[in-house]
Amino acid sequence: MRGKTFIISGPSGVGKSTVLKELLQRRDMYFSVSATTRTPRAGEVDGVHYHFVDVDTFRSMIEEEALLEHAEYVGNYYGTPKRYVDEAMEQGRDVILDIEVQGAVQVCAKRPETVRIFIAPPSWEELERRLTARGTDTQEKIQKRLQRAKIEMETAADYDYFVINDDVAHAVAELDAIMCAEHCRPAERMSQIV
Amino acid sequence: MRGKTFIISGPSGVGKSTVLKELLQRRDMYFSVSATTRTPRAGEVDGVHYHFVDVDTFRSMIEEEALLEHAEYVGNYYGTPKRYVDEAMEQGRDVILDIEVQGAVQVCAKRPETVRIFIAPPSWEELERRLTARGTDTQEKIQKRLQRAKIEMETAADYDYFVINDDVAHAVAELDAIMCAEHCRPAERMSQIV
Repeated sequence: MRGKTFIISGPSGVGKSTVLKELLQRRDMYFSVSATTRTPRAGEVDGVHYHFVDVDTFRSMIEEEALLEHAEYVGNYYGTPKRYVDEAMEQGRDVILDIEVQGAVQVCAKRPETVRIFIAPPSWEELERRLTARGTDTQEKIQKRLQRAKIEMETAADYDYFVINDDVAHAVAELDAIMCAEHCRPAERMSQIV
Repeated sequence: MRGKTFIISGPSGVGKSTVLKELLQRRDMYFSVSATTRTPRAGEVDGVHYHFVDVDTFRSMIEEEALLEHAEYVGNYYGTPKRYVDEAMEQGRDVILDIEVQGAVQVCAKRPETVRIFIAPPSWEELERRLTARGTDTQEKIQKRLQRAKIEMETAADYDYFVINDDVAHAVAELDAIMCAEHCRPAERMSQIV
């Protein structure tokens, strides 16, 4: 049985990486590694944190339609290579794409069967509290992230599912249920009756 | 939060009642009780096994659109009263309608948001084996049930989900996951963020 692709989007500070880390302990899935033209930081491993490529390589990937989505961010390219996603799916593994809302639109235009899940904070105050608790951003940056989060959230109505990360275990259980349910679609299942 | 309605259909002999009994131990749901004009059998309790009504009452229920679906079967009427379903949903309880494929079409025409789940046997041989094991039907009757099952299964592609009852615990877990996932839809969830 072919694997399925799940897009997970959510605002900065929502706790997405913690939730996905827990989910991957429960379900065997391929967590898609992005390609980027930015320089590796200390400790970053090619093929693990990113596929590091030069600008020419990235541009030819765009041209050859080797990317499911891509974007430019502060002078660097980022994108999702189609190849590893397809390999995983052919092996019957589900795929997680941890991408933001613009990327999700690009992927779904190409592959409408992709399942989109939005992870949201329980409240705006809680998101602000989490962003502040990280201690990595100035108050101004936090306000910008909150503004961006509100814009992103407006697109969440187009997602298939909306998971509120009020509690990590609860959010993981819901993601697990969604993925289980999506494997119960007639198109996938009916052919199994002999 | 308003409850949701789930239709469960599946061929005779698939093990639906066992699966639903287990499911109701896990989730608090209202299992819809049908109205019928047929005479109560020994041990049947009004309001528990059926709502027993006379033909005139049933006909006025049809006229007043008090039924979500109805059908005639060997000279008796059977139908799903709207009232108890709506009461349960307003109380925030999910509802199970154990109805066959024709009834499902009627309900979904009125309420397209209803979630349809088809329960199927792992194979045709297994369904025949289960029907034979019950020991209640003649071989001719079993063949008729199998024929009917194949026709019903053709409509299963229109269902939202398709659960294979290869193992009761597994089927129950999938139904549970589907119901959990269906409560993660943006329309229901987005209003919860304050």
